[in-house]
Amino acid sequence: MTHIPKTPADTETLLSEVQGWKHRHVLDLDNFSREELDMVMQTAGVMLDILSRPVKKVPALKGKTIATLFYEPSTRTRSSFELAAKSLSADVLNLNVSQSSISKGESLLDTLDTLESLGADMVVMRHPLSGAPYLAANNCHANIINAGDGWHAHPSQALLDIFTILRHKSSLEGLKITLIGDIKHSRVAHSNIWGLSKMGAKITLCAPYTLLPEGLNTNSKIFPEVTLETDIKQAVSGADVVMGLRLQRERQQSGLLPGIREYARYFQLNEEILKLAKPNSLVMHPGPVNEDIELSQSVVHGEQSVINEQVKNGVAVRMALFYLCSGSKEI
Amino acid sequence: MTHIPKTPADTETLLSEVQGWKHRHVLDLDNFSREELDMVMQTAGVMLDILSRPVKKVPALKGKTIATLFYEPSTRTRSSFELAAKSLSADVLNLNVSQSSISKGESLLDTLDTLESLGADMVVMRHPLSGAPYLAANNCHANIINAGDGWHAHPSQALLDIFTILRHKSSLEGLKITLIGDIKHSRVAHSNIWGLSKMGAKITLCAPYTLLPEGLNTNSKIFPEVTLETDIKQAVSGADVVMGLRLQRERQQSGLLPGIREYARYFQLNEEILKLAKPNSLVMHPGPVNEDIELSQSVVHGEQSVINEQVKNGVAVRMALFYLCSGSKEI
Amino acid sequence: MTHIPKTPADTETLLSEVQGWKHRHVLDLDNFSREELDMVMQTAGVMLDILSRPVKKVPALKGKTIATLFYEPSTRTRSSFELAAKSLSADVLNLNVSQSSISKGESLLDTLDTLESLGADMVVMRHPLSGAPYLAANNCHANIINAGDGWHAHPSQALLDIFTILRHKSSLEGLKITLIGDIKHSRVAHSNIWGLSKMGAKITLCAPYTLLPEGLNTNSKIFPEVTLETDIKQAVSGADVVMGLRLQRERQQSGLLPGIREYARYFQLNEEILKLAKPNSLVMHPGPVNEDIELSQSVVHGEQSVINEQVKNGVAVRMALFYLCSGSKEI
Repeated sequence: MTHIPKTPADTETLLSEVQGWKHRHVLDLDNFSREELDMVMQTAGVMLDILSRPVKKVPALKGKTIATLFYEPSTRTRSSFELAAKSLSADVLNLNVSQSSISKGESLLDTLDTLESLGADMVVMRHPLSGAPYLAANNCHANIINAGDGWHAHPSQALLDIFTILRHKSSLEGLKITLIGDIKHSRVAHSNIWGLSKMGAKITLCAPYTLLPEGLNTNSKIFPEVTLETDIKQAVSGADVVMGLRLQRERQQSGLLPGIREYARYFQLNEEILKLAKPNSLVMHPGPVNEDIELSQSVVHGEQSVINEQVKNGVAVRMALFYLCSGSKEI
Repeated sequence: MTHIPKTPADTETLLSEVQGWKHRHVLDLDNFSREELDMVMQTAGVMLDILSRPVKKVPALKGKTIATLFYEPSTRTRSSFELAAKSLSADVLNLNVSQSSISKGESLLDTLDTLESLGADMVVMRHPLSGAPYLAANNCHANIINAGDGWHAHPSQALLDIFTILRHKSSLEGLKITLIGDIKHSRVAHSNIWGLSKMGAKITLCAPYTLLPEGLNTNSKIFPEVTLETDIKQAVSGADVVMGLRLQRERQQSGLLPGIREYARYFQLNEEILKLAKPNSLVMHPGPVNEDIELSQSVVHGEQSVINEQVKNGVAVRMALFYLCSGSKEI
Repeated sequence: MTHIPKTPADTETLLSEVQGWKHRHVLDLDNFSREELDMVMQTAGVMLDILSRPVKKVPALKGKTIATLFYEPSTRTRSSFELAAKSLSADVLNLNVSQSSISKGESLLDTLDTLESLGADMVVMRHPLSGAPYLAANNCHANIINAGDGWHAHPSQALLDIFTILRHKSSLEGLKITLIGDIKHSRVAHSNIWGLSKMGAKITLCAPYTLLPEGLNTNSKIFPEVTLETDIKQAVSGADVVMGLRLQRERQQSGLLPGIREYARYFQLNEEILKLAKPNSLVMHPGPVNEDIELSQSVVHGEQSVINEQVKNGVAVRMALFYLCSGSKEI
């Protein structure tokens, strides 16, 4: 069972127990053991505690440089990592790489070489190509934190989702967690399937046929507890957690998605559908929400919504990842 | 009478006297009492003193996060707030929101929710719509500092103008202060009218008829000391302070302004006109100046110009606003 | 002879010896004496040592503000200066000035006035016009560090090149150093010619006739040791250092350059050509490299390449320049 510290008194004791962290990079959750996930949760609990103090800053990474290297713009995720780094007293270098400068010709590995030579100890990277962070991790000494690569993975988002659920439920063991939306092209979904499964949850994936993943099926040995469902009522019924995913409007224009209005009619989580879930169920979304498409406005702002908590917890989880990967023993 | 400290020795004594500050937000000056304006002036005096030290930085807001959220670009104002925040040791998160990302759909309140969840303690915001900061202040817990909203208000600019005058005059009581330019559409003018009036100044507003405000008149009970004038010679005659306003060229293209050259011919403050003011009168401008339009080049760079002082004082005044709104008692 | 400290023990002793620095600005190397170049090298050695510590940050410039003012975009150079400033604990204000905002009308001197009034103690500036930093230095009190002006100069690049060579060779006295590329339009080459000459190196400049400088010739008294060469084999033969320069593709489109492929065929430094240089010769490039144009891929990533070291040393050299110009005596 994962225990999340709630009081300042726990802080030092718990951090001293965080031992045996082996990862230098955070690329995806498929190679994280249950014990390692617990370690992130414990550490993030300490970080959340730090963030609730009047001075929400500790010197753990003072004199370290963390670069954010975003090949796709994302103010929200970049800001979360930036504030996490600053709360640990690291220096932050923000690099937004536009398509135009990619075409000017400096390759990803050249850019990483330069960042490393400039002194970057860690690189938070978002890249449109799946697997790019693996290429990076195999070719540089800095710690690589994947902040989203193509359709592949978004591990810090899945970790903050797990953390947020654990702030409300004592464990994920046996919980019914339903993900609704474009599962197939969602890196958030992909990382969550690995993470939530490892934590013992039973996952239901709900989408139109065309947006369900091909590689997954209910007979899979790797994901024994994953169910596919095209009927939102069945999917939400009895759920402990319902997670909407962001519909990428860009993708819809390419013809891969059904019409937005059609999607909203059959797959929007609204108050009526939500009543089918357990009474104390949680509503989640990685944000930003297209209101009245994925979720009805009343559900976004309703009592069961923990969407803003997810944002808050994201900073704590990212602090935990920086801290653990840095090998720092001070806080 | 407002006393501005001039020496380091005053620092601690004066700050300990700053008591009874009630504002959590700075939206406009219309609800600031004379005592509160004095409090800002006193605190800004201490901050200016800090900025003159070899190490111009104090730990007052260490561990706090200040976000700048600009829906209109303004390097100058944003930089001033950024440096003010850093001089108090706060962490700064800069968000420039372009028109394109607004159209992508995240609303102002959603963005503020996110900023607050990310840990922003204060949000400095500039928005093209008048009143937007009020909407923000009513819907979030962070302190909102209005850095300009539409034509409505720009309170930190008016406060730094008052502060700058007080560095040269012992009081504003009874001073003749003349504002020249597009009064009607100037948020700087609007905030200054409230602030300068409260400080006891007699205000003259000078502009072509079409650019004078409709809502104001000399019989107004709220602004008993405001005079409207279309003749620049009358307006400047005997003035203690002459303040040019920036002519928004964008607006002229929309037909709301007279021709630039015509404007400059009748309303430019040049050396000849300036001679009509008092000998030791001050020339001010919120910047950036369109030289040889609002002010002649010789007047911009002349002996009576305190335009660069305004920029310098702006950092101190913004430090004061952060400090006071934060409720910090340390410096 | 220039001695570069290699161990932490040297740090304090060496810095205390750095005395008599007179420059308030770094505009170009033409007015640097040999002793002053040595002083930069010594100080940069100390800074490199600081950068190798677990906490790579010292409080030398705490409470100082360094602005980067770039009229041409350059993530790489700007980042190097930014990290150098942060490693000395200065606050950094980044200003990217686009062509559009120049055309809006604020002049360079107005912008510098504003930066200075905002509290900038130092301004790192890059400008498309040769000489702009001189105009700046003559008209403001902040220290001006030229980060590249037109075709004229890029002194910090030349200093980091000298420093990098000195990390491998005991002295530059009598070394054959060959620069290959668009010498005529290269500010890197121009500053290196001054710097390397002062350090006692014999310089060979290699390019097509049209890209060789007109002002230089082998009979020049100022540069007695500079040789012009259009044959790359002659140029590289027996060299101790071979430095490629970046080919500006923009310029080629204007017809000033030969075709890229033609250039690469006759002037690319590849493994075969490199064999003509001394066995332990160094390969350098200011970056980013157009691979397989200026340098073959195998040479860029070969054993003799010190290109990544140049990037690393650049941060140390820029720290040294900030430190020396600031007049700080603490580290």
